Order: sequence, then C-alpha cells, then structure tokens
Amino acid sequence: MYSQKLLKPDGRALTLYSRQPIAEGLTAPSPSQEPVQANPHLRWHPLRGEWVAYASHRQGRTFMPPPQYNPLAPTTDPEFPTELPQGDYDVAVFDNRFPSLTQGANNPPNCIVETLPANGACEVVVFTQDPEASLGSLTLDHLDLLLQVWGDRTRLLGSIPQIQYVLPFENKGVEVGVTLHHPHGQIYAYPLIPPVCARMLEQQEKFYQEQGRGLLEDLIEKEIKDQQRIIYQDQYAIAFIPVCARYPYEVWLAPIQAVPSFIELSREQRQSLAKALKTVTLKYDGLWQRSFPYLMAWFQAPTDGNAHPEAHLHAQFYPPYRTREKLKYLAGTELAAGMFVNDALPEEKAKELQAVVVNLSEPVQV
Amino acid sequence: MYSQKLLKPDGRALTLYSRQPIAEGLTAPSPSQEPVQANPHLRWHPLRGEWVAYASHRQGRTFMPPPQYNPLAPTTDPEFPTELPQGDYDVAVFDNRFPSLTQGANNPPNCIVETLPANGACEVVVFTQDPEASLGSLTLDHLDLLLQVWGDRTRLLGSIPQIQYVLPFENKGVEVGVTLHHPHGQIYAYPLIPPVCARMLEQQEKFYQEQGRGLLEDLIEKEIKDQQRIIYQDQYAIAFIPVCARYPYEVWLAPIQAVPSFIELSREQRQSLAKALKTVTLKYDGLWQRSFPYLMAWFQAPTDGNAHPEAHLHAQFYPPYRTREKLKYLAGTELAAGMFVNDALPEEKAKELQAVVVNLSEPVQV
Repeated sequence: MYSQKLLKPDGRALTLYSRQPIAEGLTAPSPSQEPVQANPHLRWHPLRGEWVAYASHRQGRTFMPPPQYNPLAPTTDPEFPTELPQGDYDVAVFDNRFPSLTQGANNPPNCIVETLPANGACEVVVFTQDPEASLGSLTLDHLDLLLQVWGDRTRLLGSIPQIQYVLPFENKGVEVGVTLHHPHGQIYAYPLIPPVCARMLEQQEKFYQEQGRGLLEDLIEKEIKDQQRIIYQDQYAIAFIPVCARYPYEVWLAPIQAVPSFIELSREQRQSLAKALKTVTLKYDGLWQRSFPYLMAWFQAPTDGNAHPEAHLHAQFYPPYRTREKLKYLAGTELAAGMFVNDALPEEKAKELQAVVVNLSEPVQV
Repeated sequence: MYSQKLLKPDGRALTLYSRQPIAEGLTAPSPSQEPVQANPHLRWHPLRGEWVAYASHRQGRTFMPPPQYNPLAPTTDPEFPTELPQGDYDVAVFDNRFPSLTQGANNPPNCIVETLPANGACEVVVFTQDPEASLGSLTLDHLDLLLQVWGDRTRLLGSIPQIQYVLPFENKGVEVGVTLHHPHGQIYAYPLIPPVCARMLEQQEKFYQEQGRGLLEDLIEKEIKDQQRIIYQDQYAIAFIPVCARYPYEVWLAPIQAVPSFIELSREQRQSLAKALKTVTLKYDGLWQRSFPYLMAWFQAPTDGNAHPEAHLHAQFYPPYRTREKLKYLAGTELAAGMFVNDALPEEKAKELQAVVVNLSEPVQV
C-alpha cells in the first residue's frame, strides 16, 4: 500500500492511498478556503453517566446538495473545487470540514455540569473514485486495501495521546439520513471510550477473566456449530446474523480468531474479511434488487495504551428495514428504555440472506 | 377518578377511566375475535449484556390503516368494531393486540444464548375520545386525570410479582413511525429493569449514597439557578431543556421535589405537572405552527419490591427534528458508539421554545 499526505488550503489533511505509487505534485483542493472554525465541546450527562458532544457549527453543513456537484468526486472544474484532486489513487481520507471532535478544541463553556473540549478527530473515508460504486461492487483487492486503510488510520489516530478509541463506520442510504451518495464512510476518534464500546468491552473483559478466552470467539464457535444464521464462512472470517440480533437484518462480520484491532490483522484474515464484506453487502443489495441502506460500524480495541486481549475486531451492520416496505423505527422501548424489540426471528431473516446468490469474482453493477 | 374494567371477546382487558361514574352495561369490542396468540421471548445479548425481545407475530400488525377506520375511536359500525365502546369516559387502557411482552409467555426456544419467556405487559393508553386532540389541546383537568391513570397502571402492573419496571411513553408523528394518529400512548411493563433505566438508577443511587439527596433534584436546583433553559416553572413542577440535552429540542419535565413514581404524587404536584405537560406540548406545536413529533417517556422507580429513594419521576421528550426542515438521524456515533452529537446548544433551543406564547386556560385548536 502506498500513501501520500497533502494539506488542504483550509488547513485540513488529506491522505491518498493506492496499490501503486502515487505521482508527486498533486494539490489538495477544498470546497472552502476558510480555516475550519470548529470548536466543539463535551458536557457531562449526570443521569446517563456519559458525555454528549456539542458541535453547533454543524447546523449549516451540506445537506442534499444538487446532483451535479459531488464534493467527494475528484475536482474537474477548478471554479467548484471538491474535496479530492484528480490522480491515480484508490481510497482517500480527509479531515471532516464539520467535525464533532477536533484536535484544536479548547476553552469549553462554563456550565452547570462538567465540560471538556471535544478533542478527537472526525475523518471522511472515500472508498473509491467511482460515485456509482458500493462496497459490494468493489473488487476484493480494493476492499482489502480499504481494510488496510482503516488499519493505517487506527494506528495513526490511536497514536495521538488523547485518542482512546477509533471507530470506522459507514452510514448508507437516505433512510439513515445520508446526504452524499458517493461511497464513503467516516472515522470518529474519541478522547474517551464511548458508552456502548465501554459496555461491550466490560462484558468481554469479564468473560476473558473468567474463561481465559474471548466472548465473541465463544459466540462465533457456537454460531458455527449451530449453522442456522451463517451468511459467510471460510477458514479465517465469518459473517452471521447473531442469535441476539436487535435489528431484523443485523449482520456481524469478524475474523474467527480474536484479533484486537485492524492493526493486528494477518494478510489471510484481511483477505477473508474482504470476501465476507463483499458477500454481505452484495447479499444486502441483491435481497430486494436495490441499494440496501445500513449503518456499519467496526468495533475494536481502545487505543488507551493498555493491552486489550478481550477485544475482538468486528463489524456490526444495522439495516433500518424490517421488511421490503417497512422501516424499523426506534421508539419508546428502544430509545428510552434501551430494550430492543425485534419483530423477526434471526433464523428466518438469515434464510432470506442465505438464499441470495452472489458471485465474488464477477464485476457487479448495482 | 372512576374506572371500569371490561373483558374483550379475545380475552384482552379494557379499563375505562373518567371523572364521572361510568354507566354499567358497556361491552368491550375488539377488531379481532380470535384470542391473542403472542408468545414473545427474550434472548441474552452477551456482548451488550442485555436482553432483546423477539415478537415475530408483530410483523403483520396494523400499519397506516385507511383513514376511515380508526381502531382507537369508539365503535360506531358494529360490522367494524374498534378497540373502544361508545360511552362517557375520558381515558381508556387496553392490552396491546400485538404485545412484545405478555403475561402468558412460555416455552422460549432453545438457543445458543440464554432465553426467557418475555413475561410482562404492553398496554395502549387512549388519551381522549377526540381523534383530533393532542396532549396540548386537552384541558388541565383531563391531563391531571391522565397522570392519575398512569399512576393507577403503575400500581396495578407493578403489583404483578414478575414486573420490575413500568414505562409509560408516547410516540407521536409519522417521523417516529406512528401508525395511528388518534392521541394515545403505550405502557411497557418489563420483567427486568431495562438497560437505560438501570444505568440512570445506578448513577442516581451512587449520588444518593454520597450526597444523601437526589441527583435529578440536584440538577433541577442548578437549572433553576441558571434559568437559561427553563420552559415552565411553578412551585411544584418544572420543564427545561437539560444542559446535557442529546436531542436539539429535548425537554425534561419533573416534580421539583423528588417523588419516586406516579403513585406518590400529591394532588398539587400532579396539577402542576399537568400545567407543565400542557405548556411543553403547546409550545412544541406552536413553534412551527404544526403538530410537533416526539418520543415522550416517563422514568420512575422500579417495581421490584425494593425502596428507591434515589428515583425521581420525570418525563424526557426526544423530538426528531433539529430544525424546521431537518431531521436528526441517529447514525454511527449515536447508534453504534452511544455518544450523541448535538448540532445545537441547549441554551439556543431553549430561547426558541421560551419565545412561544401559550395560554393554558383557553381551548386550543392545533
């Protein structure tokens, strides 16, 4: 993997990634020439015992721009610069122009609860130069590169002392509020371990202390024995609807053997994860023969300087649909009480995805 | 308050509530004559350390029925029975026809994780016979009665040994997936303390042990001193955008002095809460001169047989809008990591709601 780091005129960083050496002399454009003014802060939520981020400058952010202008495509008209230059590269990562967390944050306001500067980082990951692609339509080699990029970002962001947790994710589809349809994800790098990640690590650590092995490894072993909900499986990686799915089409994707983070993935594990990732996203898109919206998040070990043998890198997909026509709305019991009600049995939804035939080697048009 | 309990032909219970004695001889109708077949179960989610409910019969539930048929209005055509009879009553409560939790649940399936019958109860609370009303348009006396009804349900459901927590809530608006527009809410009665409620009680108990007083009482005292975010305040009750709001228009509503649950409310506190409730919902509807969607949930002490001096009855409103035209979508950081990012400062949103003038005594058309 080759990479090249550039600086945008507004001070933001852009890194290009490629399988091939990247030509020198590229210039990083930006839709705006003014330095990013973001100064987000955190406030303590005493009742929930967690932090909330306030990023009031984000109100004015891009929302459903006209289709002719795509800020994530390479710049073609210098009068309307985008976020990316023309050139030979496969994946690009740049600082979000409207960050919820940023390294320069300072002087949080005085409040009746504790406040902190929202130190951290928010990055945008452009998966490909092709605006019509999706994870499922990219080649296995391209997905393998993307997994390497997530590893590089985890390593770089995680090495910043204040950063405790690096979360790559993708929001896909208007149903989940996505404003730009060019295939891309985001990375949030937090100055703390966020509550859900902390909760999962707590469960994993307890199990690890008691059993001397990983909680997710244990669940995966049981899922493999049970076989009912498997969506993809090879020697190194697996994808399945978990027995405890909270969303009807929820899928988890992981190396079979516990690996704490993207950084420690072997080449074989990465290549298998690429196959699993392509299989799941192709099956999603194939299910109703249309682009399938989801939230995909990758959980891994914190970057807090401690060893985390309990952690197990994996992705969780949360699709918003419960049937072809019906959305699952999160309401009283989910959002207020935190107890999910799933209208569908994971075993039944797994059958639907298992029935979708996909071909990993053929070029795909979605 | 008068009440009358009736039995529907399909075995479900219906209770009518009124300020006046209710005529004898009313018959409880039901859209369906077949006994409810629900047999939901719970599965343990090992990674999150929480239970997930599976209610697969719910897939076929009523979804956007034709406008001429309103299952929550009194029955007028015996060929198309609704959930309610004609008669003089103000509020009605009946067992949900598609419950996620039910007292008859049994024989959960064998799974690779622990399972339990989803014992509990799901009730529908019809706020009024008027299909065009909203909480803001009801009289203060009617709202006072509704608060009494929530107390009666908390007492009755909470006295069932297996029930540990009673959560009244309202989902309002198509934006949050509401399929029936007749003003109504729901009550979920859980066989466990749901994760978010448990987390909040944990924080409250820690504070109570350390300080000898309530955590929410403490926050309310600070909000009153600060004054910036107050939406309603009198001697007994308060409504405010909390300093740590996760949603732009989030409002909390509570008795100023800690009261564990609806059951212990004094008459004065109840009447003040009715005024606070009417004020908040009128201000919401007045803000953009249109019906304002929200999720409203009432948190209170568990009904697990223990004393909960740390608990403080209160409502939290989560409206889905961040501006007049823009919805706040919960995405990567909120749903996956559990860290909320709020685009707006609570102080600014409070000013918007403070500026909406409402009149509690006049009849209101929304």
